[in-house]
Amino acid sequence: MGSVQIRVGIVGATGYGGGELIRLLERHPAVEIAGLAARGRDDEPIGRSHPHLASTARRVAAELPDGLDAVFLGLPHGAAAAAVPQIVERGTAVIDLGPDFRLRNAADYPRWYRFDHPAPDLLTQAVYGLPELHREQLAGLARSAGPRIVASPGCYSTTSILALAPLARAGLIGDVVVDAKSGVSGAGREAKAEMMFSEVNESVKAYGVGGHRHVAEIEQELGLLCGAPIEPVDFLPHLIPMTRGILAACHVRPTRPSSQAELDELYSAAYGSEKFVAVVPEAPATKHVLGSNMFQVHVRWDERTGRVLAIGVLDNLVKGAAGQAVQAFNVLFGLPEAAGLEQLPLSP
Amino acid sequence: MGSVQIRVGIVGATGYGGGELIRLLERHPAVEIAGLAARGRDDEPIGRSHPHLASTARRVAAELPDGLDAVFLGLPHGAAAAAVPQIVERGTAVIDLGPDFRLRNAADYPRWYRFDHPAPDLLTQAVYGLPELHREQLAGLARSAGPRIVASPGCYSTTSILALAPLARAGLIGDVVVDAKSGVSGAGREAKAEMMFSEVNESVKAYGVGGHRHVAEIEQELGLLCGAPIEPVDFLPHLIPMTRGILAACHVRPTRPSSQAELDELYSAAYGSEKFVAVVPEAPATKHVLGSNMFQVHVRWDERTGRVLAIGVLDNLVKGAAGQAVQAFNVLFGLPEAAGLEQLPLSP
Amino acid sequence: MGSVQIRVGIVGATGYGGGELIRLLERHPAVEIAGLAARGRDDEPIGRSHPHLASTARRVAAELPDGLDAVFLGLPHGAAAAAVPQIVERGTAVIDLGPDFRLRNAADYPRWYRFDHPAPDLLTQAVYGLPELHREQLAGLARSAGPRIVASPGCYSTTSILALAPLARAGLIGDVVVDAKSGVSGAGREAKAEMMFSEVNESVKAYGVGGHRHVAEIEQELGLLCGAPIEPVDFLPHLIPMTRGILAACHVRPTRPSSQAELDELYSAAYGSEKFVAVVPEAPATKHVLGSNMFQVHVRWDERTGRVLAIGVLDNLVKGAAGQAVQAFNVLFGLPEAAGLEQLPLSP
Amino acid sequence: MGSVQIRVGIVGATGYGGGELIRLLERHPAVEIAGLAARGRDDEPIGRSHPHLASTARRVAAELPDGLDAVFLGLPHGAAAAAVPQIVERGTAVIDLGPDFRLRNAADYPRWYRFDHPAPDLLTQAVYGLPELHREQLAGLARSAGPRIVASPGCYSTTSILALAPLARAGLIGDVVVDAKSGVSGAGREAKAEMMFSEVNESVKAYGVGGHRHVAEIEQELGLLCGAPIEPVDFLPHLIPMTRGILAACHVRPTRPSSQAELDELYSAAYGSEKFVAVVPEAPATKHVLGSNMFQVHVRWDERTGRVLAIGVLDNLVKGAAGQAVQAFNVLFGLPEAAGLEQLPLSP
Repeated sequence: MGSVQIRVGIVGATGYGGGELIRLLERHPAVEIAGLAARGRDDEPIGRSHPHLASTARRVAAELPDGLDAVFLGLPHGAAAAAVPQIVERGTAVIDLGPDFRLRNAADYPRWYRFDHPAPDLLTQAVYGLPELHREQLAGLARSAGPRIVASPGCYSTTSILALAPLARAGLIGDVVVDAKSGVSGAGREAKAEMMFSEVNESVKAYGVGGHRHVAEIEQELGLLCGAPIEPVDFLPHLIPMTRGILAACHVRPTRPSSQAELDELYSAAYGSEKFVAVVPEAPATKHVLGSNMFQVHVRWDERTGRVLAIGVLDNLVKGAAGQAVQAFNVLFGLPEAAGLEQLPLSP
Repeated sequence: MGSVQIRVGIVGATGYGGGELIRLLERHPAVEIAGLAARGRDDEPIGRSHPHLASTARRVAAELPDGLDAVFLGLPHGAAAAAVPQIVERGTAVIDLGPDFRLRNAADYPRWYRFDHPAPDLLTQAVYGLPELHREQLAGLARSAGPRIVASPGCYSTTSILALAPLARAGLIGDVVVDAKSGVSGAGREAKAEMMFSEVNESVKAYGVGGHRHVAEIEQELGLLCGAPIEPVDFLPHLIPMTRGILAACHVRPTRPSSQAELDELYSAAYGSEKFVAVVPEAPATKHVLGSNMFQVHVRWDERTGRVLAIGVLDNLVKGAAGQAVQAFNVLFGLPEAAGLEQLPLSP
Repeated sequence: MGSVQIRVGIVGATGYGGGELIRLLERHPAVEIAGLAARGRDDEPIGRSHPHLASTARRVAAELPDGLDAVFLGLPHGAAAAAVPQIVERGTAVIDLGPDFRLRNAADYPRWYRFDHPAPDLLTQAVYGLPELHREQLAGLARSAGPRIVASPGCYSTTSILALAPLARAGLIGDVVVDAKSGVSGAGREAKAEMMFSEVNESVKAYGVGGHRHVAEIEQELGLLCGAPIEPVDFLPHLIPMTRGILAACHVRPTRPSSQAELDELYSAAYGSEKFVAVVPEAPATKHVLGSNMFQVHVRWDERTGRVLAIGVLDNLVKGAAGQAVQAFNVLFGLPEAAGLEQLPLSP
Repeated sequence: MGSVQIRVGIVGATGYGGGELIRLLERHPAVEIAGLAARGRDDEPIGRSHPHLASTARRVAAELPDGLDAVFLGLPHGAAAAAVPQIVERGTAVIDLGPDFRLRNAADYPRWYRFDHPAPDLLTQAVYGLPELHREQLAGLARSAGPRIVASPGCYSTTSILALAPLARAGLIGDVVVDAKSGVSGAGREAKAEMMFSEVNESVKAYGVGGHRHVAEIEQELGLLCGAPIEPVDFLPHLIPMTRGILAACHVRPTRPSSQAELDELYSAAYGSEKFVAVVPEAPATKHVLGSNMFQVHVRWDERTGRVLAIGVLDNLVKGAAGQAVQAFNVLFGLPEAAGLEQLPLSP
């Protein structure tokens, strides 16, 4: 500390993801927050949009300053794809929290996001920012002379992919149902009638029935791990009356009978040395990771049904968004992977 | 009204299910509540355990009076099995809200509930109290000279069975994952550390991993509808931070390709004339049925995955417990099926 | 029942108050809902705005039909004042759930609501629709040949006035702090950023600091009971993370020392024969009245401080809005005061 | 960091306060947690009682080790009074999170806590651990040769005293109503029927009507600031459906007319240089301080009523318990006052 600081900027600073980035980067030992940007908020104190961050005395501007080492982008889909080319041209690294660089196949954008990708060449150069799966590529990106783009995964995708990765690698996934439950902060900060307290409290409902966009990422990454396309994932998200947290229950019909011992070994091998993944012996609660960058997973062989159940939990705004972005940023800049992410969960 | 009243008693009156029974039966046009019983609460005003019911001015006793037409039982499993024989011997009808008479095969009791059933002969005479499936049998019970025992289904079972029944009847169920989310009132009223507000709020977790007891009922009833045993159901319940309500997402791999049109027809045929079932065109929320005896179901053919999704919601204390018991009671006593159950849901 | 039905219409049917009116009036034995109106919703099924009421199969129109006996108005302040004159001219009774006819002094409207009242003569003819205080006047209105306007009180006002009325009548109120806590449904149904679940959950804040509009009603009615203006009321509302319910803690410095016995007598005399008021021996919870038209009050003499504490609770959408309106309507039309309001509270 | 570490122990480690102490001290740059103790939990991994702290790999013992520099005590009232004398005799400093050393007058213990204090002489040597008021005394304690006992204030007391201190010092408090709202974690972790989720959710109630114990501390400290006993405080706490956070609305009838300008000046003078107090221009929400050691206060002169309103908020488990204890510990050991307390609040 006190040594050279990496100068970063945050675009979309007034949203929930932006607030989380400020919370984490403000205390990051190797980072200087050099600018916060948000549309139509020129020179506004941060406390107006994030009262809990008023003590930082920062201000939001319409634009970021020049000369940044890295930019974190929290933008609606389509907007990052348009903005990133000129940012990376200046040699600035981009950590994009949106979906615009997550899919490798440009043809998936019109299908899932209804826009034609304006920079398909950059798609192949971007790295999917899940350090537990792509650490080497992130480090390689750091050494490359090309554009440095980290496509930071979404919250549902992170939960599902990390919960299933050891099974996918072992070729065990026959077909899979991912039934996910999310706190409402994942829906963003814009005022919507269906997200009002009176509508959400004391209620649960499924949404995105018939194909949530995150399925594309999940199928892509699991397919890469399998070495072949997997069967279409039956993914169903639910909105439950809480603010933070995601739990994904992954119900797998395996390609062959397994056992608890085999599953334990697979997960231990995959995650035993991961700082932000804990394989737990009982079904975890989202509260166990609240406010932290931890991902917890529980895996179980069910002799009665001959199926595998893998349950993953994380805080959608930390390991599912801002924390994960900082983790990948740390790898990209050769910092200790946990820098700025040491906070223990907050409970109860 | 004002005509002959059916004299009923409620055992277990101080629990959540008991409170709901009082709420409903107190306003039932053809019922006189003749007694409320609960262990160790002799001559206590009902307002002490149920402040919201204080205005009824009723009292709880240790025992029910004699001469009742029907008794509603809310007892721990095992206790009803012991008590019911002598109740029915007196000619009193029993509506049992617990599991002791739900399973037809006595051998299932030691397996799922860890007790040997003391009255296996009564098991075959009891009727599973889901009027939408067993209305004729309930009416037949009314006319029979034998013991009248209604085994009122549990909340998870009702949601799952009603959501899947039309598929089961059509032989469409290949394998099935039932991923359920429940409010915490389903766990009962006893003080438990893990049910404290501070532990439940802002959290979600799965429980009963590896085999919740309600699976036995679900497999039994779906098997009856199929006409053959179905594959073991992968059933996973979750506890979410709300008080009332259950949502079951039933993910079905069908035995053959189906279509939205076929599904619509099956569900419309099954439920078109049911007063307490609504087939809805969008994913329902538990809030839409809160406090009422309604069950809502949404069914969808997913062309991309070739699977069927059926989502059911109900209020676990009404259609999932007390309301359903009253509905079956109405059938048993030849009353209009909706008597005492006309309340509209309470929202927001 | 089955006899002559009173034909009513509801304006503002798609809001929370409107939904509650439908819920109650749909089951009212002497009422026929002849029309539902809401701006810009012509011929829309009610289930689109109120999914929980879809089973009623009603539709919303832009305008009410003619020939109604009574109209319930749920409109923004200022709008009812403009609309009511022509409604009453046709001989239709108005039950206004907004503030436009609650204040007797026309000069209070520009002060508290920032509009000049367009029909000041009607203000003196309207009756403040709190049956516990103005039952005779409501009945008198029924017999009068003039315009029948019931100004149905707001939720904060009802709670505060009923909690303090016996003290005001006895001249005991020296000065008074009313510290109120409300569920967020009281803020209405319009999408607002600060009412989103993620902002409201796990938080409490005061609002309207320095003078909430409901103070005007509270001071008016307490002054009438005292027979003289009372000191300005220190009224502070809070928003807490729940949907329904209001609790007002009224801290009174009495004009002279009192005693628990005197207080008990005053409250018993005031409310002993009221169907919808219960004087309770312990501090009540809003959950004890949820979904019902009950008001509960607890009063206590504190020997240590020489002060009086009166705590009132109600459901802001029932006794604080729609239920109270129906109660006053019943008095106005000579019906049993509890008609359509017999539901017991819903708990837990 | 890396230099000499202060060896501390935590008694009552499995409660909510204990968990918060571990969360904070585990990341404190100058502290080594040398022992965790809790009754009947010998050699249990901390993850069993605090799953969110499992990653620390610590274990709980029945007893603390010897040779500690400081002990944090989280014990039921009465238990600390008995245990502290022998701890301080060994030269170990005590930071007591319970009430046993907060009151200066031994006669207050039988009155408010119903036990006779076994070490009245230590009462006068203990320092009330509110650094904003007693920083000098805490520093003096550090230099003294006598027993070092910090009586860390409770959550209600801290909120009320800090909200009112500038008024008390200026002699402005005529009489005062403190109407407080608390999250339920303040009630501790023991399973109680009335703290179950289903009872707390969607409800609010007052409790401790007629005299909550914390009044004793509040009156003591405000009296010290005034230089004379103040009138009995009318203190009323409420339980609201949230886990963390306290808001105290302090309604003051001043001894003489004041003005917004005077109030602003008083609060700015009192708190302008305090790291953990922010005087805010609008009514604060508890969410703005969640998980942090911040206290926020808003003060307002109400011209209409001639009264002062002061609203304070904090996180009851941090600035209202563990964080405050760490802050006082820092002062006692000559560390930077914010060491280990730098976390920003967590929102939403």
